Amino acid sequence: MGTTGEVFVIAGTGTLSMEMAISNTLRSGDDMLVVSHGFFGDRFVELCERRDLNVDVLRSKWGKAVSVEEIEEQLRKKSYDAITVTHVDTSTGVSAPIKEIGEILKKYEDTLYIVDGVCSTAGQREYIDEMDIDILLTGSQKAFGVAPGLAILWAGEKALERRKSLGTISEYYIDFERWIPIMNDPSKYFATPAVNMIWALKESINIIKEEGLENRYKRHIRNGRAMQAALEGLGFELLADKDVRAVTLSNALYMDGIDDVEFRSILAEEGVVVAGGLGDYAGKMFRLGHMGNIDIHDMVSTIGAIERTLYRVGVDVELGEGVGILMGELLK
Amino acid sequence: MGTTGEVFVIAGTGTLSMEMAISNTLRSGDDMLVVSHGFFGDRFVELCERRDLNVDVLRSKWGKAVSVEEIEEQLRKKSYDAITVTHVDTSTGVSAPIKEIGEILKKYEDTLYIVDGVCSTAGQREYIDEMDIDILLTGSQKAFGVAPGLAILWAGEKALERRKSLGTISEYYIDFERWIPIMNDPSKYFATPAVNMIWALKESINIIKEEGLENRYKRHIRNGRAMQAALEGLGFELLADKDVRAVTLSNALYMDGIDDVEFRSILAEEGVVVAGGLGDYAGKMFRLGHMGNIDIHDMVSTIGAIERTLYRVGVDVELGEGVGILMGELLK
Repeated sequence: MGTTGEVFVIAGTGTLSMEMAISNTLRSGDDMLVVSHGFFGDRFVELCERRDLNVDVLRSKWGKAVSVEEIEEQLRKKSYDAITVTHVDTSTGVSAPIKEIGEILKKYEDTLYIVDGVCSTAGQREYIDEMDIDILLTGSQKAFGVAPGLAILWAGEKALERRKSLGTISEYYIDFERWIPIMNDPSKYFATPAVNMIWALKESINIIKEEGLENRYKRHIRNGRAMQAALEGLGFELLADKDVRAVTLSNALYMDGIDDVEFRSILAEEGVVVAGGLGDYAGKMFRLGHMGNIDIHDMVSTIGAIERTLYRVGVDVELGEGVGILMGELLK
Repeated sequence: MGTTGEVFVIAGTGTLSMEMAISNTLRSGDDMLVVSHGFFGDRFVELCERRDLNVDVLRSKWGKAVSVEEIEEQLRKKSYDAITVTHVDTSTGVSAPIKEIGEILKKYEDTLYIVDGVCSTAGQREYIDEMDIDILLTGSQKAFGVAPGLAILWAGEKALERRKSLGTISEYYIDFERWIPIMNDPSKYFATPAVNMIWALKESINIIKEEGLENRYKRHIRNGRAMQAALEGLGFELLADKDVRAVTLSNALYMDGIDDVEFRSILAEEGVVVAGGLGDYAGKMFRLGHMGNIDIHDMVSTIGAIERTLYRVGVDVELGEGVGILMGELLK
């Protein structure tokens, strides 16, 4: 991931890796800036408030992004011990400009840059050291293409020094200091590793290395844009603005008259399981992941299934149109 | 597990479930009694101290157990908000009399009874409500016979009420209150479940139900005693005193002249992986698990491999003797 820092792989989930980032670097009373583009940005607010941090939030309307200028202005106004940015917030499909934010943060050496990569890592560009990221965190089940069950976190020198400065922390299982010896020598013991999951992650990393990270990022862009063109061609509006739209998933708003439960259950019968909307968008949207090791067959069959579902719920759809748009985009 | 209480199954490990038990029921300044029969009993001390609990420890010499009388005396002297007991401490192979301790605790209504079942649950008798246990915790990889990766915890009414009385706690991922809605309706979302692991656990529970829990406990006793007789017959001394010896694993002390690393690597070549000693017993002992869904073939081949290893490291062993003792015990 482009870093000489430490990596942690433990049994858990993305949420646990978010908590791990906060617990190991911040103490009660610290000042925190949360950039929130949806449900998972807001999750950082709750995590921080539980630890009595002073939290300021820059929050966008769902589907929009907080501008880099706004973040810069806030950083000029007040000094922060850390800032969190969700690279891709799966609730909105908004992708944050993490490279540009990293550029600004070069001027704020005392502000740790924590990037939530749960819905992006291994799918959208993240070069940790180059982007001045201090902590990148993710889970195994997204663009790594492994089953859920692992929390994964990279911490750079600045984050590790911050951990040291905290002394003993109340958390135990997610304490960097307890895991560092094991991450450097897995024959040592702290808590039982999720062996099967780690073997699966290893295989996933082999697949990623074979493809090449930069090729993988490019493939995600190509696939994401093609899927989104197909969805729009079928009449769906996408929640995220075009200029801040993620490529790992699409958040498609239903046309009038489509019932969420009916649509998603028919789509499941057609062989594709999608997630529903979160927060205010529950019932109004479905979320379609297209990250990891998916190929053109997966994409064609997914758009095909969505077309059949539209047909079955009574939408006037020209069968094959979405698939045609998808393939046209991919052949460009 | 003989309870009407709540069950929690989350991605994690036994250590995380220990932390979950403490975080959800105790606050800074609470009084805690830890009964420690080894490395994992002591782990509770560290977990509690990190949270600024006042911890008293009743600690036995490794291989011995704290007596029920001693625990009773301590409870008479001082009132505690909770007591932790490690049912089987894998570092020593000592099994605690959790039923008898539960009997005493019936008189101490304000003291939560927390039992660490990491090395016992689904292998040694634990009937939660009957034994007055308030929290039982374990991992997936021991007597459940699943791969590592799940933290499992049962909490009774008293423990759940204690959680409520704490208000907001600083921990997020392991907060009972966040998980209760999901455990009652898994279609709800809090953090991504380790789906594959949960399917494996489900299959393991089907296997357990088919065997019957009480039959399973009896089989563990029969198997454990037979394995231990075979090990003793081969000349190993077992660390745990006979009257407090666990049946889920055996902690065998090396005879003079056996090198730990050599023994365990030859045994691995012979097809059996065992764990080394912990703490002061590192290098002096190996730990052999015989819990979960092992059968007579597993046991015969394991004792056979140990005999071949003894032969290869130069111990004067009569090949087949241990296997003979094992089978003789099982046929009784």
